[in-house]
Amino acid sequence: MKLSELAELTSATIENGSPDLEITSAAGLDIAASGDVTFLANPKYTSQIETTKASAIFLNEGVKISRGDLAVLRAKDAYLAYTRALRTFFPVSPVVPGVHPSAVIDPTANVSERAEIGANVVLGKNAVVENGVKIYPNATIYDNARIGEGSIIHSGVSIRENCEVGRNCIVQNNSTIGSDGFGYAKDEEKRWLKIPQVGRVVLEDDVEIGANTAIDCASVGESRIKRGTKIDNLVQIGHSCTVDEDALICAQTGLAGTSVIGKRVILAGQVGIAGHLKVGDDAVLTAKSATSHDVEPGKVISGIPGFDNREWLRSTAAFQRLGDFTRRVRELENKVAGIIKAV
Amino acid sequence: MKLSELAELTSATIENGSPDLEITSAAGLDIAASGDVTFLANPKYTSQIETTKASAIFLNEGVKISRGDLAVLRAKDAYLAYTRALRTFFPVSPVVPGVHPSAVIDPTANVSERAEIGANVVLGKNAVVENGVKIYPNATIYDNARIGEGSIIHSGVSIRENCEVGRNCIVQNNSTIGSDGFGYAKDEEKRWLKIPQVGRVVLEDDVEIGANTAIDCASVGESRIKRGTKIDNLVQIGHSCTVDEDALICAQTGLAGTSVIGKRVILAGQVGIAGHLKVGDDAVLTAKSATSHDVEPGKVISGIPGFDNREWLRSTAAFQRLGDFTRRVRELENKVAGIIKAV
Amino acid sequence: MKLSELAELTSATIENGSPDLEITSAAGLDIAASGDVTFLANPKYTSQIETTKASAIFLNEGVKISRGDLAVLRAKDAYLAYTRALRTFFPVSPVVPGVHPSAVIDPTANVSERAEIGANVVLGKNAVVENGVKIYPNATIYDNARIGEGSIIHSGVSIRENCEVGRNCIVQNNSTIGSDGFGYAKDEEKRWLKIPQVGRVVLEDDVEIGANTAIDCASVGESRIKRGTKIDNLVQIGHSCTVDEDALICAQTGLAGTSVIGKRVILAGQVGIAGHLKVGDDAVLTAKSATSHDVEPGKVISGIPGFDNREWLRSTAAFQRLGDFTRRVRELENKVAGIIKAV
Repeated sequence: MKLSELAELTSATIENGSPDLEITSAAGLDIAASGDVTFLANPKYTSQIETTKASAIFLNEGVKISRGDLAVLRAKDAYLAYTRALRTFFPVSPVVPGVHPSAVIDPTANVSERAEIGANVVLGKNAVVENGVKIYPNATIYDNARIGEGSIIHSGVSIRENCEVGRNCIVQNNSTIGSDGFGYAKDEEKRWLKIPQVGRVVLEDDVEIGANTAIDCASVGESRIKRGTKIDNLVQIGHSCTVDEDALICAQTGLAGTSVIGKRVILAGQVGIAGHLKVGDDAVLTAKSATSHDVEPGKVISGIPGFDNREWLRSTAAFQRLGDFTRRVRELENKVAGIIKAV
Repeated sequence: MKLSELAELTSATIENGSPDLEITSAAGLDIAASGDVTFLANPKYTSQIETTKASAIFLNEGVKISRGDLAVLRAKDAYLAYTRALRTFFPVSPVVPGVHPSAVIDPTANVSERAEIGANVVLGKNAVVENGVKIYPNATIYDNARIGEGSIIHSGVSIRENCEVGRNCIVQNNSTIGSDGFGYAKDEEKRWLKIPQVGRVVLEDDVEIGANTAIDCASVGESRIKRGTKIDNLVQIGHSCTVDEDALICAQTGLAGTSVIGKRVILAGQVGIAGHLKVGDDAVLTAKSATSHDVEPGKVISGIPGFDNREWLRSTAAFQRLGDFTRRVRELENKVAGIIKAV
Repeated sequence: MKLSELAELTSATIENGSPDLEITSAAGLDIAASGDVTFLANPKYTSQIETTKASAIFLNEGVKISRGDLAVLRAKDAYLAYTRALRTFFPVSPVVPGVHPSAVIDPTANVSERAEIGANVVLGKNAVVENGVKIYPNATIYDNARIGEGSIIHSGVSIRENCEVGRNCIVQNNSTIGSDGFGYAKDEEKRWLKIPQVGRVVLEDDVEIGANTAIDCASVGESRIKRGTKIDNLVQIGHSCTVDEDALICAQTGLAGTSVIGKRVILAGQVGIAGHLKVGDDAVLTAKSATSHDVEPGKVISGIPGFDNREWLRSTAAFQRLGDFTRRVRELENKVAGIIKAV
């Protein structure tokens, strides 16, 4: 692809370099080879520009570099432009329609002729698999589950009974969609009595679920992950939660039951959200923080329990001197006692 | 089912409504439809009583509502009564005895004729599957493992060699029972030498294990989860742990090796328990807390490291003002220095 | 095996007991039976020496016991010596070469005649399985993946496209090697645009991966776990990370993307490592700590965010009195105000 074509495709402008320069792939600064386009988004990596072997680079407005031999594509958002370049050079591998002879498909299941069903996949009663779906080997689709058009289900995944996967979703390996919620009532003998978990999970369109993640069904009703939300590896979503559109939930974060996560919320890694609460649109919880209260829209929250991120930064800075602090207060107490005695 | 029958079944008393009212299902306040019984346990949801479409409601003693058109079932424990109603309306789906032709059963395995073995299940040498067991597709039972009467094993689960699952247990999808413990000795070259992990895991009766949870076997001997304990998703149980009866271990909690968890202990979400320690009966660790010391019976512990929950609440409240605190101590120091100079 | 043989095998010296004493197995102090060798490494268990039924014990230099009837093997490192004894008494079960008829092997895959491929295993295009490999049932090896000599892949594992497992590795059940990295760019409509994840994961020789762990591939390039590193259950390794040789990563720890973990680093349970940073050789992060900054070689770090472990111990001690502290500072303020007024 010519540099000029790439610029057009990514809405960038050529600031340096020949429009006819041939670009063949895309890669990060450190591993890019000749012919690759690369990018700079995190200033931490600026020094790598000196040594990169890339032939062209996407740069945000205002960023200057000293390498005159590197073609420059000026973009409004270098990271986004680079992503579009990558998507062009590495298209998703095509679906090869057909059902592997070792797959076990219930006669009542409804599988599109344009779907690809891998080896040893098992589809339950009345399961529905739409056009362009790809199910990798050793995945299991329970009774009455539905996989929407263009979705990809990886090996080892279980989609439980009655659950629904929307269009163009991806579920990475060994994840569980629709496991029983963790609900028990204590009986008269202080033993746990299982609460039936007969609801379901709905993943709307364009949702991605990472590897080894578990999303519980509702006891009655549904857990719902709305359009465009992306969930990372090893995440726990409890029963009856709703995660609104375009949220980002990073690895090892956990949601207890019946919480509502707003649009475009970002939950960083290892965050904990207690049950029965609401995190407002565009809120951010930084890594390892937790909340047992509602979070207002747009707030950035840190700590356990979480509070305003700026206050938390001040508190954690003070915390690191807390041992010393104890000594200072004791000294003050002694001095004041001495003064009171003297006066 | 008539309201009067439901009342009897759940040991509740009819306080409002006709004994002949027909109740057809059960659901939460927000999603209940006409004909459903619902419940109120968490006061947070009191306002939903105004709008619920349910026909009847379980209420704890002392709780009053203003809706005269809603049949009221007064219960000692509304949540427990509702759970029993749900269990009546949604019985567990029956086991359909038989072995799917695609299952691979070692000739030395001993499978009850009253068990249901799903597609592509693999059973190893001398594996035992008792009456009424249901094993979902793509599960793997290793050599010499035993699945007790009435237990349910979901797709993607591995039950490792020699492990034992008791009666009426449930193991949700993609969990691992009996993976190797994480044990290594450092050799003379500072490399890790694997310690053989040849013990096993025993789940006693009525244990439930969530999805994507891993329970390690002991190096020698056993890890044991005792009767009635419930374990959530993505939980880590290290080698040689013992969890006593009726404990509740919430999602993403981790136990290092050789710890002993007492009866009815509650470990909330994302808790960490260090190795070689003992948590006494009825103790509670709140979410995201951790302990590297023994915990006394009945204590409620919070924080990292964990200490008394009430003290922790005071400390975390003060922590949020810690930045301001620093300033106050500095000001005090200046004033006291000024006084000392003046005096 | 005679005590004298065991001593030689473990580089220990007999300090008490007959060289001809027959030792038949090895086990911990509490469960050892007559004929077993046991060990003492953690002083916490010293009292168990009084009651152990073992016939011999490995002791570190300087440790004395009062039981004259217990044969004593003096070792430089009792734990290491015991590990070697265990490895002798419990050798790894041998590989039985052959491909189970239910396995689905792509015609282009290259499987050694000396490998063991279990029931319902699926091997993709051009997958390579070397000598002495054992793949347990229901594992899935994607296209172009390679499993090196002597490695063991357990049930439910997915090894994704192009990934490479070195020699003598072990991957415990339901882990995912090479899932897509969690990478998205925000587009003009504030929706997440997936960044192609076309790199791979390389596990070098002697690496062990626990159960239900997820290691993401790089977007372009590779994530690499170097020789001898051991990773526990439910661990998250983000895209493009490098973990150097002989590191130890305990359960439920998470690494965000593009971090570099040094040689022999220990990350205890539930640790969090932010993206784009470097943890130096031999550093230790204690359980539940986290860092968003580089960590110097050899440092021991605790807390969220992590800082020097000794300082952290002082700070956490003070934290537990922080509620009381608030009161003390307020009292000081009042007294000082009083003094100022008086003077």
